Amino acid sequence: MIRSFVSLLFFAALALAEPADWVIAARYAVTMDPARRVIDDGAVAVRGERILAVGPRTAILKAYQPKQRLDRPRAILLPGLVNAHAHAPMSLLRGIADDLKLQEWLEKYIFPAEAKNVTPEFVRWGTRLACLEMALSGVTTYADMYYFEEVVAEATKEAGLRGVLGETIINFPVPDARTPAEGLKRAEAFIRRFRNDPLIVPAVAPHAVYTNTEESLRQARALANRYDVPLLTHLSETKAENEQVRAKWGMTPAALLDQWGIFGGKTLVAHAVWVDEADRRILRERGAGVAHCPSSNTKLASGVAPVLAMLGAGLAVGLGTDGPAGSNNDFNLFEEMDLAAKMQKVFSGDPRALPARQALEMATILGARTVSLDKQIGSLEPGKRADLITVAIDQPHAVPLYDVYSQLVYALKAADVRDVMVNGRLILRERQSLMLNPAAILAKAEEFRAKISASLPQ
Amino acid sequence: MIRSFVSLLFFAALALAEPADWVIAARYAVTMDPARRVIDDGAVAVRGERILAVGPRTAILKAYQPKQRLDRPRAILLPGLVNAHAHAPMSLLRGIADDLKLQEWLEKYIFPAEAKNVTPEFVRWGTRLACLEMALSGVTTYADMYYFEEVVAEATKEAGLRGVLGETIINFPVPDARTPAEGLKRAEAFIRRFRNDPLIVPAVAPHAVYTNTEESLRQARALANRYDVPLLTHLSETKAENEQVRAKWGMTPAALLDQWGIFGGKTLVAHAVWVDEADRRILRERGAGVAHCPSSNTKLASGVAPVLAMLGAGLAVGLGTDGPAGSNNDFNLFEEMDLAAKMQKVFSGDPRALPARQALEMATILGARTVSLDKQIGSLEPGKRADLITVAIDQPHAVPLYDVYSQLVYALKAADVRDVMVNGRLILRERQSLMLNPAAILAKAEEFRAKISASLPQ
Repeated sequence: MIRSFVSLLFFAALALAEPADWVIAARYAVTMDPARRVIDDGAVAVRGERILAVGPRTAILKAYQPKQRLDRPRAILLPGLVNAHAHAPMSLLRGIADDLKLQEWLEKYIFPAEAKNVTPEFVRWGTRLACLEMALSGVTTYADMYYFEEVVAEATKEAGLRGVLGETIINFPVPDARTPAEGLKRAEAFIRRFRNDPLIVPAVAPHAVYTNTEESLRQARALANRYDVPLLTHLSETKAENEQVRAKWGMTPAALLDQWGIFGGKTLVAHAVWVDEADRRILRERGAGVAHCPSSNTKLASGVAPVLAMLGAGLAVGLGTDGPAGSNNDFNLFEEMDLAAKMQKVFSGDPRALPARQALEMATILGARTVSLDKQIGSLEPGKRADLITVAIDQPHAVPLYDVYSQLVYALKAADVRDVMVNGRLILRERQSLMLNPAAILAKAEEFRAKISASLPQ
Repeated sequence: MIRSFVSLLFFAALALAEPADWVIAARYAVTMDPARRVIDDGAVAVRGERILAVGPRTAILKAYQPKQRLDRPRAILLPGLVNAHAHAPMSLLRGIADDLKLQEWLEKYIFPAEAKNVTPEFVRWGTRLACLEMALSGVTTYADMYYFEEVVAEATKEAGLRGVLGETIINFPVPDARTPAEGLKRAEAFIRRFRNDPLIVPAVAPHAVYTNTEESLRQARALANRYDVPLLTHLSETKAENEQVRAKWGMTPAALLDQWGIFGGKTLVAHAVWVDEADRRILRERGAGVAHCPSSNTKLASGVAPVLAMLGAGLAVGLGTDGPAGSNNDFNLFEEMDLAAKMQKVFSGDPRALPARQALEMATILGARTVSLDKQIGSLEPGKRADLITVAIDQPHAVPLYDVYSQLVYALKAADVRDVMVNGRLILRERQSLMLNPAAILAKAEEFRAKISASLPQ
């Protein structure tokens, strides 16, 4: 009698429960929502591409009846990470020439290697390798600048990742364009092809002020605005860049680009190591996002970006890995979070600077703002796209756990990422890719290595 | 006929082959020997505690007939890493209080938490957790300073790791001694108990110049020399320490300790962030080793140690993780190598500074020198103890591989460590501990977390 009453209640609850495609539960849900809620035994309900609800596991399971469940009692559930600056296909040049001066690195190794080796096939396999690595390290969205960006887009879609992908515009012949005009033409075709894609945000990427003319920069901006897509560029990466621009134009790169109207629209600048207070004001006023790349800036000895000042000025500062061919050697946002925090502490002399939660903000909700996607991604909130990850806390380096933010930024590793969902689709489960063929990708990487090594100066 | 002739040759070869306990082979053997040989398809033969031979796999297998084999065609074989500065039991305080000023951190969190919680059981389980994590990240030897160091030693032996373990001497009541005299008495008993141990090098660890008197420091040195064991201490970690010592004594901590004769014998100093040229000369002349701790120094905003100058002066500079309760959050030498290189590059403005090979030297052969064990460990050489690890190169972030040193320092992770041998004994195989019970250790860590959390100020 009592039993059938309980059954009745159960079926009544089921009848009231809304259908969902997924309920994903974990020991902690770190939402990164405006209140920065951390939910003990939290869960997210997902339907289609979107998050339906976020809350305590028991409440979510009462309210939603999922087709599939993912229970991770020994993991943290959080928004997928945003890699705000990358050159994905350069994965095939990982560590090809380390510990060198920038000019020697570029002129003796990178440019010759690229000139000889960068083909659509290189770009396809390099992007596959990078996307596999990024998924395995919890990245769900990345911003990219390279050549043959339509191939980057195809491989990114195949991997199930979200990409803000910029076709490069540059003032000398490159593998996919002899002139900036040709690059702009390719960029427009690329934008038209992908502008309604659920995963890809096409973009225009004039390489930098020192590798473009005023004309090609203005044209890139006009093209971006014509289709309301972002413009991506490098800005004030090195002191030498600033000095060169000042010598020629009498102002900083940021001031010069602003004078030309290049920041008039969605903009993401990478590095911003040498931006002064006036530059920061310009970026803030124009609403430009900044991709801070601590591994790259330290490894190439570019300098220490004024991250605290930029954040203090209200700028959206995200984290980027840059490319893995000398400026970094991997696509690992966990390491960028950790390094960003440590660099700001030691260079400001204040251990309270850039605390763990703020570093995680840079990798999630602020990163989403840098690519103008903060309405869609960057936090676990109802209505947003279901871009989320689980990170295991069952390894020796993960215990004991006193604070989830500290653990995520200072102790947990990319290797602790367990599951990855992008746009409502599970793309990694228990570290197994559901989209790509790792064995084929690793074998191809070795083929490319042999070919590329043979093409290098002895 | 031909077949039996081949069989005959085979048995003749076997008859000529010397017996060995192990042959361990890998795609690359990175020896860190004086010639810094890297052997393609390399192998090591091991008998008992020692390395018999190092060479190409085929030659080693011709010369030695092993009882057991470990074949790792997709891994790098290299000497085990040396963590030159740790506080192992503090693993149980991992991230207990991050992003705070040093004084607040020490006085509000660490000292109270230690006073209430540090017992032999805390030390035992904390050391087990730390040793498990260290083995999983390729550390085969570590230097430690804590309380109840005899329990640290017991747990370290149980884990199969090699430890240079210093009983702390400090001028105020601590969990295992009310006075420095009591600490010195404990230290002597500890040294007598472990001085002939194959894995443990007992040591004396006066905490620092500012937490000891001249008398207790001199007594610690005398005790160390009586048994020919190392003295471990913290030195010039912060600018404030230097200023305090200068105000009281009119000289630097290094000059003061030298004047008191504290460097007269085997010595390892941790940090050495604020050592000037004269200090470095003193350390060099006394043959003192230095444990550089880049994670700790950046996270606590202590400063950037003059590593290039110290290495240039011929000092033995190793890498240490420090403790994981605020100064770092893990025991991960891969991250220390990467960070050491990046910090020196950005701080010197030269991307060629501290290249990958040198960073690996700091984690291996130079680390061995800092603990006066470079005749025994730190490289793969015949006659040395068999302390070695394999690191897998079969993950997406590990390919393609152009340079083994670059890959080890800038791309590979602690999670890539696959097997660990210490003193001829395999203690980790395919990331499974052959010595410890991970489930029991993780469960205990959670028990301690609950208890310690309840003891903290709200």
